[in-house]
Amino acid sequence: MSLVDRIRDCARFEPGRYRPFIVGGAAVGRIDEAVAGLLRPFADVFDISEHSVTMNEGLKDPGQRTEAMAGVLEALRGGGHIPGWRDEAYPVGSAFSAPSLLTMERAAVPLFGVKGYGVHVNGFVRDGAGIKMWIGKRSLDKPTGPGKLDQIVAGGQPAGVSLSDNMIKECGEEAGIPAALAATARPVGTVSYMTGREEGLRDDVLFNYDLELPAGFEPANTDGEVEVFFLWPMAQVMDTLAKGDDFKFNCALVVIDFLVRWGFITPEDPDYIEIVQGVDRQFPAPKDRG
Amino acid sequence: MSLVDRIRDCARFEPGRYRPFIVGGAAVGRIDEAVAGLLRPFADVFDISEHSVTMNEGLKDPGQRTEAMAGVLEALRGGGHIPGWRDEAYPVGSAFSAPSLLTMERAAVPLFGVKGYGVHVNGFVRDGAGIKMWIGKRSLDKPTGPGKLDQIVAGGQPAGVSLSDNMIKECGEEAGIPAALAATARPVGTVSYMTGREEGLRDDVLFNYDLELPAGFEPANTDGEVEVFFLWPMAQVMDTLAKGDDFKFNCALVVIDFLVRWGFITPEDPDYIEIVQGVDRQFPAPKDRG
Repeated sequence: MSLVDRIRDCARFEPGRYRPFIVGGAAVGRIDEAVAGLLRPFADVFDISEHSVTMNEGLKDPGQRTEAMAGVLEALRGGGHIPGWRDEAYPVGSAFSAPSLLTMERAAVPLFGVKGYGVHVNGFVRDGAGIKMWIGKRSLDKPTGPGKLDQIVAGGQPAGVSLSDNMIKECGEEAGIPAALAATARPVGTVSYMTGREEGLRDDVLFNYDLELPAGFEPANTDGEVEVFFLWPMAQVMDTLAKGDDFKFNCALVVIDFLVRWGFITPEDPDYIEIVQGVDRQFPAPKDRG
Repeated sequence: MSLVDRIRDCARFEPGRYRPFIVGGAAVGRIDEAVAGLLRPFADVFDISEHSVTMNEGLKDPGQRTEAMAGVLEALRGGGHIPGWRDEAYPVGSAFSAPSLLTMERAAVPLFGVKGYGVHVNGFVRDGAGIKMWIGKRSLDKPTGPGKLDQIVAGGQPAGVSLSDNMIKECGEEAGIPAALAATARPVGTVSYMTGREEGLRDDVLFNYDLELPAGFEPANTDGEVEVFFLWPMAQVMDTLAKGDDFKFNCALVVIDFLVRWGFITPEDPDYIEIVQGVDRQFPAPKDRG
């Protein structure tokens, strides 16, 4: 058993590598030297010092900042520095429920170490006394985690839509789940992580839902993001998680949170506290260097 | 609504007040100046500096340390410094599953800021589409939280018994729940907190269980620790939590964790992330002063 390895995959954070990214007086992200180097030519947008990267204080409102950031990101995209461009506007703020300071292309969020938010749905079926879980295999042309295992439904939380509406919309697009059925999903908490990945620093909070599906339900992907769905007994889900990284790093956390809440992992496990606390790890705010 | 107040009641921790308590080379607790002053006369047991309180390294094994600690605590008890003496041996180690470095009287654990562990059981009943929860009112002669509201069953985790056996034993003693029924309780995770209280610094991890009880079940207290039980609809439980501190501080966290996992608190609540992360807060280990 090495569920702990999945937990640790989500906490590869080296504080010393980053300086805070400051917008409108608030530290909203973390930037490493490589990204600071890419931003240095844009001196009208970013003030870069050894201790911080600050969005130019002359950019006073969200509209001005969003426009200036879009110009920078288009230029970096042209230089091949932002793979997996999505055309999806992400809000950037000092907290999830705080007013947005700007919006920016989702694919660039990890370069700035800005907090991301998503909705993930554990789709499960009762099978006698046991439980089976629907697992999606991500399409091979997804920009992150191609071919990895995933929840039945998961998506980023874009600007301008409520969590609940977004979850229901994703249920329809990713798995063909009717809105009335999706609306029965129960919110069950969050998972959080901060970890360095190929795409940058992922500092995310995922809002999780459990959705009980009828035994005869068959998910059907409609947006090309899922290659195939499997319906696995929980023992197979746990074995797969423990034996390697077949699951996308953050989707693994969401399943482990489910395993904890449903009692599939017990406090007799010597790693119980590390596992339980590791699914919703708390990191310091990016106020200071490190 | 102010569930957030209950969360904050469990995080009143002032790092600068404490120096680490070191046993066998491991930092296992936090001691403030008042307690350091009480320990200063026992120079054969504790080496006290401005930066740490270290159990004398001449005390080589758990037996020697336990005996030396017991002598100190008896003397402090005689001086009236350890109210609520319980005659309950608590193991002290560098982690829950690490070997015990010594055992000590439970009532003295908060004076040394040593991590405590407990088992708490959410007893609930399905009532049509809704859920009711059994709430215990603590006996007025309990040393901590007299008269406060509590889970149907809760207890400290003593040395020498498994979590599961302890939970089942407490179910019998505190609520007259037969062992076969108690054994159906499902482990659902932990809550954690570190907070300064009248009794000292409480740095605890509670292992939580959900136990579904039949509609006709009536709890019966057999050990005098519970004055009365109530069966409340969840709305009443939530209202009571939100409006004041009728619940014992840590029992409030356990109920809030239940409310999160069962979807009674939704991510549309602007305090959702603070609430969800606050029920299992992570604090630094007591390695350094502060």
